Amino acid sequence: MSFNITDAVAEIKAGVRVIPDFPKPGIQFLDITPIIGCGHLFRQTVDVFKERYTQQKVDAIVAIDARGFIFGSALAYALGCGVALVRKAGKLPHVTYKTDYTLEYGSNTVEMHIDALKPGDRAIVIDDLLATGGTAAAACKLVEQTGATVGEVAVVIELTFLPGREKLAPYEVYSVLKY
Amino acid sequence: MSFNITDAVAEIKAGVRVIPDFPKPGIQFLDITPIIGCGHLFRQTVDVFKERYTQQKVDAIVAIDARGFIFGSALAYALGCGVALVRKAGKLPHVTYKTDYTLEYGSNTVEMHIDALKPGDRAIVIDDLLATGGTAAAACKLVEQTGATVGEVAVVIELTFLPGREKLAPYEVYSVLKY
Repeated sequence: MSFNITDAVAEIKAGVRVIPDFPKPGIQFLDITPIIGCGHLFRQTVDVFKERYTQQKVDAIVAIDARGFIFGSALAYALGCGVALVRKAGKLPHVTYKTDYTLEYGSNTVEMHIDALKPGDRAIVIDDLLATGGTAAAACKLVEQTGATVGEVAVVIELTFLPGREKLAPYEVYSVLKY
Repeated sequence: MSFNITDAVAEIKAGVRVIPDFPKPGIQFLDITPIIGCGHLFRQTVDVFKERYTQQKVDAIVAIDARGFIFGSALAYALGCGVALVRKAGKLPHVTYKTDYTLEYGSNTVEMHIDALKPGDRAIVIDDLLATGGTAAAACKLVEQTGATVGEVAVVIELTFLPGREKLAPYEVYSVLKY
């Protein structure tokens, strides 16, 4: 296999663009659009995940709205499995499970269709970024409500100065890039 | 090539779920989540697009927030090209082009990063559903603002009783399923 993970990760990291003061002053936003905008870098990123998950039992990818859809659906296509969507309240048309989670100010609700996963499925939860882990933790709770299990949480970028990984324990976290 | 488009389309159509009265009374919502939730049907759907676009010059996929991301990113992965995102105002971190479009009540604004496409690129605009065509037309305008060209608009489902196809002319529209 000619795919070298270390080289791929270095290339992907060089593609991240830092945007100062977005979405508000003082925040350095890590913009992944240059990665997805380049066919080579996008494929490399998805293939880093693919390399990992072809070696595991994976029945479904759980993709978090909206940037998680980008990586999650390409990975599902690469693996040949289906995608279950985690969306903000009111976006999914069928009967859903709901989970609330707290934000810095206020709270949010995410939903998943009750039949998006089957009991016993091993699902990988995927998003672009792991920060405080609130959304990912809510997504994991939704997975368990369906009777499926969380194999792992996978992200492109992990902010290691925030306690996302601790919040998600005992679930494992896999990140392509760490900051 | 063993991939039979007619058989694939019939299988995909059987996967669409009709949800009455969503998002409001009287609307029959065509739910594509059973398609994406099944690894076989999801791959079939993406491969219908792939079959078509491997025969054309395609430099980028333009994916419309949020369900367009699901099909668009998997297709981009399959073709080996990049993805340019069309998102609602305020979601993209870098400098953007903006386009307004009218809805039944009020208006909406979509944006694309100014460097999401290169001048001369031939882009395929992709979404899950073509209804009145307002969002897709706005996406096409954004593509042209970057100096790229719209090769075609591609959707999973076209509602042929609405004038989406006429609104998008002279752009071509390709749909996997027609209702």
